[in-house]
Amino acid sequence: MRVLGVDPGNAVTGFGVVERRGELHYVIAGTIRAGVLRGPARLAAIYRNLIEVIDAHAPHAISLERSFVAVNIQSAFKLGEARAMAMLAAAHRGLELFEYTPTDVKLSIAGYGRADKRQVKEMVHRTLGVGVPDDLAEDATDALAISLCHIFRAKMPRPSTVRKAFLHPARPRAIVGAKP
Amino acid sequence: MRVLGVDPGNAVTGFGVVERRGELHYVIAGTIRAGVLRGPARLAAIYRNLIEVIDAHAPHAISLERSFVAVNIQSAFKLGEARAMAMLAAAHRGLELFEYTPTDVKLSIAGYGRADKRQVKEMVHRTLGVGVPDDLAEDATDALAISLCHIFRAKMPRPSTVRKAFLHPARPRAIVGAKP
Repeated sequence: MRVLGVDPGNAVTGFGVVERRGELHYVIAGTIRAGVLRGPARLAAIYRNLIEVIDAHAPHAISLERSFVAVNIQSAFKLGEARAMAMLAAAHRGLELFEYTPTDVKLSIAGYGRADKRQVKEMVHRTLGVGVPDDLAEDATDALAISLCHIFRAKMPRPSTVRKAFLHPARPRAIVGAKP
Repeated sequence: MRVLGVDPGNAVTGFGVVERRGELHYVIAGTIRAGVLRGPARLAAIYRNLIEVIDAHAPHAISLERSFVAVNIQSAFKLGEARAMAMLAAAHRGLELFEYTPTDVKLSIAGYGRADKRQVKEMVHRTLGVGVPDDLAEDATDALAISLCHIFRAKMPRPSTVRKAFLHPARPRAIVGAKP
């Protein structure tokens, strides 16, 4: 079981792949710094890089952080745009997508829903061992935590908190009423 | 000059293609009703159908409505996700993307920034003539208005209101710090 965790952001999107093969193994983690780009080019960079990570490291599922808060409506729009790239990448590669709140992630990793960044980082390093580079960016570490959250939850499913986004690849096309 | 107007929505995304060839001509309009789908499948349906419209009708640019308001943060996230599909489709097909507020659209079409739906519809039909089907969905008519807005603005550019989203297809890859 190999999971790609994604921490979407307005400027930086973190990603981290973890594998459970008996024990837990670090595969790769990093950041997509698309904030220097604007509009369509920004989203295309996030999408393309996520697809490249998927194609190179073949995860079975995507674990995506779903925040319910934003500083304001504009940042919610931008965050929605970044999140959408992970969702579309999941759909285009046929991966199941699971969504977790920041509290879900902190609870699974640190056993405490209000754990701080430092505690999360420490637990990621402790859980994955020496394979994790010391100098990972914070967003990459967060993405590993999101990936681990799904792995822990999938081990002991709790249907009320594990939200599986539905995939209906076989549903009929959604266009109606196109009138030439 | 052929423009695809897109009116992104949580449940329904309207699209409408208009061509300026001396006069203005209606090409096609319709709606993508992806609200019945969830998560990744919803976004994939919006993306795929927009790409199909682009490939079938070869617009030169996309005109996208950019709202600055949302009922709440959750609906802003969802609207951002739908908007992102139009932005990514523009990037993937190398089309320039222009964004207009609802007020911009109403001003260009009806000469009045607070025009109501009925007035916008009437002006779309009057501007495009008999080619427009009578029974178009409201979101499709709105998308035609968004398309017309760009055509009118592009004729008499006003740099302060025409916002061109930057495309940097030649920029280097945005991943940094991927650590295997």
